[in-house]
Amino acid sequence: MNKTYKGYLIDLDGTMYRGTERVEAASDFVKTLREKEIPHLFVTNNSSRRPSQVADKLNTFDIPAQPEQIYTTSMATASYIKAQKPGARVYAMGEEGLMHALEEAGLTLAEENCDYVVVGLDHELNYEKLTKACLNVRAGATFLSTNGDVAIPTERGMLPGNGSITSVVTVSTGVEPTFIGKPESIIMEQAMGAIGLNREDMLMVGDNYNTDILAGMNAEMDTLHVQTGVTTKEQLSQYSQQPTYTISTLHQWIPYL
Amino acid sequence: MNKTYKGYLIDLDGTMYRGTERVEAASDFVKTLREKEIPHLFVTNNSSRRPSQVADKLNTFDIPAQPEQIYTTSMATASYIKAQKPGARVYAMGEEGLMHALEEAGLTLAEENCDYVVVGLDHELNYEKLTKACLNVRAGATFLSTNGDVAIPTERGMLPGNGSITSVVTVSTGVEPTFIGKPESIIMEQAMGAIGLNREDMLMVGDNYNTDILAGMNAEMDTLHVQTGVTTKEQLSQYSQQPTYTISTLHQWIPYL
Repeated sequence: MNKTYKGYLIDLDGTMYRGTERVEAASDFVKTLREKEIPHLFVTNNSSRRPSQVADKLNTFDIPAQPEQIYTTSMATASYIKAQKPGARVYAMGEEGLMHALEEAGLTLAEENCDYVVVGLDHELNYEKLTKACLNVRAGATFLSTNGDVAIPTERGMLPGNGSITSVVTVSTGVEPTFIGKPESIIMEQAMGAIGLNREDMLMVGDNYNTDILAGMNAEMDTLHVQTGVTTKEQLSQYSQQPTYTISTLHQWIPYL
Repeated sequence: MNKTYKGYLIDLDGTMYRGTERVEAASDFVKTLREKEIPHLFVTNNSSRRPSQVADKLNTFDIPAQPEQIYTTSMATASYIKAQKPGARVYAMGEEGLMHALEEAGLTLAEENCDYVVVGLDHELNYEKLTKACLNVRAGATFLSTNGDVAIPTERGMLPGNGSITSVVTVSTGVEPTFIGKPESIIMEQAMGAIGLNREDMLMVGDNYNTDILAGMNAEMDTLHVQTGVTTKEQLSQYSQQPTYTISTLHQWIPYL
């Protein structure tokens, strides 16, 4: 018999949907969480969009979600900086979701003399932005990256992910960044802080062993692997450290809510 | 007594000039090479400029140079590809000097279904260019990089070099490139081929241990370190593998020409 958890952290792509496609059972699963008033946050390595935009996307799949239930790596990054140095000067490469999160946290976006450099995925990246990131890191700014994903699956194929863009600054300066997003524990710690529950009462749910499940393990949480996305049951079986649970679809978990 | 060499490969920045500054003795050294009709090529990791532009810059320092005496890593890259697959389809990120060299070698610049991907320094880089490089490498194109320099010294500080830009593709695809420029031996082999002399009759001259001197060593050439640029005499003494010779300025070498 499975433990009953008081709160959930839930991955998006591969768990709630697959690109533009529904994932069976995701809607029923989240509706049951709501009915039972079980706190949950959707935790994503996507730094580009604002929480309201992510919630809107979930709603199109008939998955109930409020902006307050979205926890992006941009929010985790902003929260991490704010805890270390409120009002810090930050040079950020990234899109709307990152800039919004940094400003919401009362941080100052700046181009030089920065306390932090944050690299997030930026489809408008250019040489000058990479230069500013490098110069600030060389001048002593703390180097953060929203996430280390090396590739993004799209209809065109695997496009460069933020981890690959981040490497420009790493290789050029010789300084390693602190990554915030999954599989790092930082985003998990921040999300648990936001939900206000202890780690032993929470379950991390996701499809990708190397991001979602490792993130949960790194944060010493119990983990639920769902076989609707990246990591298949067969692939999962080859890892030495196993998630707490693995299921074929979220329907199987509804009785345990 | 030093050996008499029949031909010279000569580095540019730090050896012939320093940015926009003269290097003492460089002009006299090259003029003596010309008077004695000793074949020499200027070998550079700068992929951006055409040979004629590089020769023009040398001329402004009163250093005689014809475009035919300039050997850029772009030319080495083009020559390397042509030797493997004449007329190959190449997706290239880079500037005028790279595109010109590839076209001069009869290669076809293309965006997809490419045989080769070449990453060279590109001040106009963007996400779409990096995407095309990644997609072609993932589709099986051979991955080359003009050079692995991680940073470029400028008045603003150290800017991202081509090695750091190249890492986007390396990290995203998991495929390691073949670097062409110094300190790799490939550019040395191509330059020796262009000058038509045997390696035991040639001397590689440069200021930077980690590029010029290692390139010479990797190509099993004798090397002359000149203390007018990056690597000081003190720094040099700490490497276990030493150049054949080290001198404070090129004036000291003129009697041996």
